[in-house]
Parts: sequence; structure tokens; C-alpha cells
Amino acid sequence: MTTYHPLNEAEAIEIARTLDGIFAPGAELKCREIGDGNLNLVFHISDPAAGSSIIMKQALPYAKVVGESWPLTLDRARIESEALILEGKLAPGLVPNVYLYDKELALTVMEDLSDHIIMRQGLISGGRYPLFADHISTFLAQTLFYTSDLGHNQQEKKLRMAGFINPELCKITEDLIFDHPYTDADTNNFELAIRDEAEALWNDGELHFEVALLREKFLTQSQALLHGDLHTGSIFITPESTKVIDPEFAYFGPIGFDIGAVIANLLLNYAAREGRDSDENEREAFRAYLLETVKDVWTQFHSKFLTLWDAHGVDRLAAAAPGYKANYMQRLLQDTFGYAGCKMVRRIVGLAHVADIDKIEDAAARERAQRLALSIGKDLIKQGRKATSIDQLIDTALSATAAVKV
Amino acid sequence: MTTYHPLNEAEAIEIARTLDGIFAPGAELKCREIGDGNLNLVFHISDPAAGSSIIMKQALPYAKVVGESWPLTLDRARIESEALILEGKLAPGLVPNVYLYDKELALTVMEDLSDHIIMRQGLISGGRYPLFADHISTFLAQTLFYTSDLGHNQQEKKLRMAGFINPELCKITEDLIFDHPYTDADTNNFELAIRDEAEALWNDGELHFEVALLREKFLTQSQALLHGDLHTGSIFITPESTKVIDPEFAYFGPIGFDIGAVIANLLLNYAAREGRDSDENEREAFRAYLLETVKDVWTQFHSKFLTLWDAHGVDRLAAAAPGYKANYMQRLLQDTFGYAGCKMVRRIVGLAHVADIDKIEDAAARERAQRLALSIGKDLIKQGRKATSIDQLIDTALSATAAVKV
Repeated sequence: MTTYHPLNEAEAIEIARTLDGIFAPGAELKCREIGDGNLNLVFHISDPAAGSSIIMKQALPYAKVVGESWPLTLDRARIESEALILEGKLAPGLVPNVYLYDKELALTVMEDLSDHIIMRQGLISGGRYPLFADHISTFLAQTLFYTSDLGHNQQEKKLRMAGFINPELCKITEDLIFDHPYTDADTNNFELAIRDEAEALWNDGELHFEVALLREKFLTQSQALLHGDLHTGSIFITPESTKVIDPEFAYFGPIGFDIGAVIANLLLNYAAREGRDSDENEREAFRAYLLETVKDVWTQFHSKFLTLWDAHGVDRLAAAAPGYKANYMQRLLQDTFGYAGCKMVRRIVGLAHVADIDKIEDAAARERAQRLALSIGKDLIKQGRKATSIDQLIDTALSATAAVKV
Repeated sequence: MTTYHPLNEAEAIEIARTLDGIFAPGAELKCREIGDGNLNLVFHISDPAAGSSIIMKQALPYAKVVGESWPLTLDRARIESEALILEGKLAPGLVPNVYLYDKELALTVMEDLSDHIIMRQGLISGGRYPLFADHISTFLAQTLFYTSDLGHNQQEKKLRMAGFINPELCKITEDLIFDHPYTDADTNNFELAIRDEAEALWNDGELHFEVALLREKFLTQSQALLHGDLHTGSIFITPESTKVIDPEFAYFGPIGFDIGAVIANLLLNYAAREGRDSDENEREAFRAYLLETVKDVWTQFHSKFLTLWDAHGVDRLAAAAPGYKANYMQRLLQDTFGYAGCKMVRRIVGLAHVADIDKIEDAAARERAQRLALSIGKDLIKQGRKATSIDQLIDTALSATAAVKV
């Protein structure tokens, strides 16, 4: 079984039996393949009698997205596994435990999180997660600070960077987030009703300039080890627990990209409330909850990152230079605005969408949600470099919402 | 001879005989070790009868600077050799040809440039190099554009980055250029006469803030493959020819660092004229030549880089976004100011100095030169982020010179 091939369920069970301390010898194991088959096989293996279970994730040597198929390196399984293990050390309890990584099979065996749900689904159903902002801001602050030049030996950081060079998955982001939505690209995917919005994106020079700057940072700024794809579909959640999964896009990039991803996906759900809530009061209450969460994510990240920096900073000059910390944090906020905006825009007109909005049944409500998301996204991109406070981001969402209502 | 050990002259000759097409079989070869023994052995091997010769450079497993000795990776020989070969492809004729690289022995065999002199010595003696600005701006534009995300496949660039991770030599720069001069560090090395200047550097918060930003970029901005140590001691020159050598500090960093290094070393010679020229007219004429060269280096780099970008740019959005090219080039200019300033300051108060100034015999003239270099350096660092034209850099040098005279 050592040469790479996609596993079947019997083989998955065979590997599961070799793990130490998970299943009793001779236990009757059940196995279901539960992946969507686009990028990976995902096996759920359980011993129903003992109530124990694991997840086994195997990378496939290709990607399938909306009918397209292209070859994709199996090395992403190594990157995902190494990123998960590192994140687990830096942010204990906020990622699944990894039990085994098999390089040859591009296979990661990890903790089963079936008692959690995907956060995107939770939010769509109106679920509230009062601990989420605390958990995700801890995850962001711990993983980003301790892999940056501020919190980690600067020579070891360079060596670590070599292990997280991730050209193929970075290219997906470079194309689908930082290029295609701003030109008439074949991969774009939007509804006919908002073709005017798509064309406006293709012809907005001011926006192109800002996106080019954000694209440049994504290509060149090796600030910290990012998760790289931190949307609400990469987060398993319960009211008590938050687990970040799927860091196969991990690479050393700009910190604001990860924070922006979290905030963009909360705001996409905010826009989706157009077609999600049965009455206006309910909608407004849930939107208020979402904006409060957005603000808490930034505010708590800001405070935790600075606390780590004060206590564990490794860069003498960065700590000593007057005004540098405040300037650094403000630039992270500005990047967060810009990347959040880019992530919203691409989910409306680019290749990959979000269920929050796409699954709205009422066409008029769906269109309103799409226009609202684009309006917020474009505003955030254009405001980015001038931003000084997270309140400006909240105000942007509120103003755009008021404009859509009129 | 395959296990690493420092070669003796007989062994060097033995290796030279194995090279194809350099020396005739049975030729009588002479060998002299001509290195300074600080970092490398350098053998000059020649066949005087035929008039042919080569240079053989072997890395030593330690560095000696001003009596200190610390271990240093032999991997720098690989980095130097690979950088030289790549630079030779991108800027033909502007680096020595590489005939052989032996990984095990950390040995690079290359073209002998004994008909050239080290540019620093040439400038000290009042030599003028009318083709230098053209040559070095070509070297800079070609090597920096074609290794950046603007001129090279962006996925291959990432893979190439992994081969130029250079933690030990980057640390030398991070410490000696971007930290120690701004605090009372043991490695600092300055004359008692300018202790007031050193203490002013340690207590200048505005300066620390700007240096912290430049240090951050050096640590995180993977813009292009830099030479990394492009001072006038790394350039062999004649009035007709320019050859860049010694890229052992090569790594992916901010483009302005290389341009700033060239300009800083021209300006250090400019400052050194205090004690170099026999009369005022001669001094003013040579300084005018140096400032003209500084301006030409930037102006020609700017023009050549943009020409390459227009003709061979690989990034759709970077070319299409209105105003982006001009903004990018302005940021390169600003970085050039800042890095030039840092490189001047460290050569006066930091560990490693330049002969241009240190070898001035008259103590008063030497002190004036040191104060002038520091004045220009600090001004450039503080102006950097506001700079819009190379003329401002020239004006800074002229104003500082006028102030020193008064």
C-alpha cells in the first residue's frame, strides 16, 4: 500500500487498525467516504460500539471545480499536515489533532470533528457562536505572531519558509482572487442579473490600482505563515468549540489576508440575510450579531497580538522604535480591509461562490445580497489604505445596506 | 580530494588541470593564494607562457571580521555560484564566467579579472568610469526585473526562492546594518572624535522608526533576487568594462536594497573627497562626477526597468492598473533613499568600514568626511518615504556638504 493510489474503504480501515491507541484490536470498524471528491478523499472511520472515530484525508492528484479538472501536487498534503501540526502547537485546541501523516500516500489521519458543524452552515441556519471571536482571534494572533519575524527566530523563520513554498495553491488565489474578477476571464461565474456589476468591476481603474497593490503584497510579503483559505467553510464549530481545518493553502504571506478572510465571510453572511430571515427584526438582530463579531475578531486579535509582542517579541528595533508598533498594527488593519474586500468580490463574480448567497431561493433577494456584498467589498478595497479603525469597516457595511434598501 | 578541506596551492593546480579548454595539457601552471583569508581562499592560477589564467574561490567554514571569528555555512558557495550563473544569463558580460562549481569543496572556478581593478580603489585614486552608470543600471534592471514577479513566471519564482534562502548571511545584514548602529552594541566601531554622532544615532526615535520599516522590508519583502552586497568592493572595473562579483549574500529581498548599495558607496566616496583631493577645484569636479553618476544610475535603471516591464511583463493586472507602474517605481526610489542611507550610516559607526574614508590620513579631514557621510545617510533615511525624485537625493548631498563647510 506504499505507492500512491487513491484508497478504497477497505484499505482505509486497514491503515486505521495500525494506529496506536485509537481503536481496540479486533474492533469492528465502519468506514464511509464523505468528501465531495473535488480535491481529496475523506474517510470517516468509526468503532460504533466504542464510540471512537477518526478522519482520514487523502489528497487526489487533481482538482475539480465546476466541471474543470487540472493536475495538482500531492505535496499539498504535506503542507496541510505540517501546517496543522504547527498550528496545533501554537494554538492548542483550535485545530484537529493529527495522528499520522503518510507522505507516500498523501494521507493525513486526524481527530474526528463530527460533533461540530461547518460554520458556514451554522451561520446560514442562524446559529450564534458567542465564543467564536475569542477563539479565532486567539488562533490568528498565536499562529501569525509566532511564525512572523516578530515572534520567531528570524533565521529559523527563513528555513521554515522554504518548507511552505506553495506555488500551485498560491496560483489559485492569485488568479481567482487577484486577477480574474477584474477582467472578462473565462473562469468568472456570475448571474446575468448582475452583469452590469461585473462589467463595472472590469472597468474600475481606481479599484484595479488597489487590487494590484494587494496582489503585489500577496506575491511578495512573507510576513507570517498564513492558513491561506480561512473562510467559514474551513471552520468546524459548536457554541463551545472552534476548530480550524484545511490549511492546504498555507504559505508565508501578508497577515491581513487571513484576518480579511474571516471578516469577509462574516460579511458575506451579513449580505445573505437579504434572503435568509423571515422578518426584518430577525434580520437586523442577526446582522447586528455578525457586525459585533466582526468588530470583536479585529479588536481581540489586535489586543492579543500586541500582548504577545510586548511579552515575547524577538526583534529589538521593532520593539524600541517609537510609534512602530502602532504603525504596524494600523497597516495590518488596512490590509485586512483590502483583503476582506477582495474576498467578497470574488465570491460574487469569480469562479467559487458561497452557499450563504448562492442558495438563496428568491431571485430578487439573491440579487440584492449579491449587490450588497459587491458594494461592501469594493468600498473596503478602496478605503483600505486610508483605514484607521475597525469602526470604519462596520460603518461601510451599514451605509451599503442603507443604500441597497433605498 | 572530494571531502571538504581547505585546499593548498598544489591541490588547486591539480583541479585546474581537470578543466576543459582552459589550460593546455602539460602547461606549467603557477598558483598564488590572493584572498584576505577572512571568508574565502582565493587562488590565482595562470599559465604565464600562454597568458591564460583563472580564479578559484573556496569558501572557508568561518568568517573573520576585525578579529572576531564565527562559523559560517559552506552553502554560501552554492548560493554565490548559482547567483553568478543566473546573473550571467540575465546580464551577459557583467559578471565573471563560471567554469566549475564543486559543491563538496565549496569551490567556484571562474574567469580571471586581473585586468580590472576593484572599483573602490579606482574611485579612491580619482578614477572615472564613464560607462559604469550604463553597465550597473543594466545589471540592476536585468537581474532585478527578470527575477521579480513582474518579469518571471510567478510559480517558478517561488521555487527559485527556496534555493536562495540565505539565513546566515542575511543575519549579518540584519544585525550590522539594521540594528547595531542604532544602539550601543559591542560590534560598533567608530572613532572617539565622533562619539557624539554615535550617541545621537542611538537616541534618534524618528530615525529608529524609519530604520525599523526598512528592516521589516529587508526581512519580509521577497521582491526579486538581490545581489545583497553591491558595494564598490564587489565591482571589478576598467573604463570599458564592469564586472559584478561576490553575490554570496544573494536572497529574495527589496529591490531598493541593491540600488541603494551602489548609490551609498558612490556617496561614501563623495564624502571621502574631504581628505582625498589636493585642491578645492579638483574635489568639486570629482564630486560633481560622482553625483552625476548617482543620478545616471537611478535614471537609467528607472528607464531600463520600465522598458523591460512594458515589453516583457508577465503580470496582467500590474500592467493594466492605471498608475500602478509609476507608483511601483516611486516606491523603489523611496526604498533606494532609505537603504542608501542605512548603508552609509553603518560604514561610519558599525563594524565594517570603507577604505575611502578610513584610510584618510588627516584626522580632521577624516572626521569631516565621517560627519558628512552620517549627515547625508540620516537625511536620506528620514526623507525616504516622502521622496519623489532622484534630484532630492542630489540636493541632500549638496546641502549636507554646504553645512559641513560652514
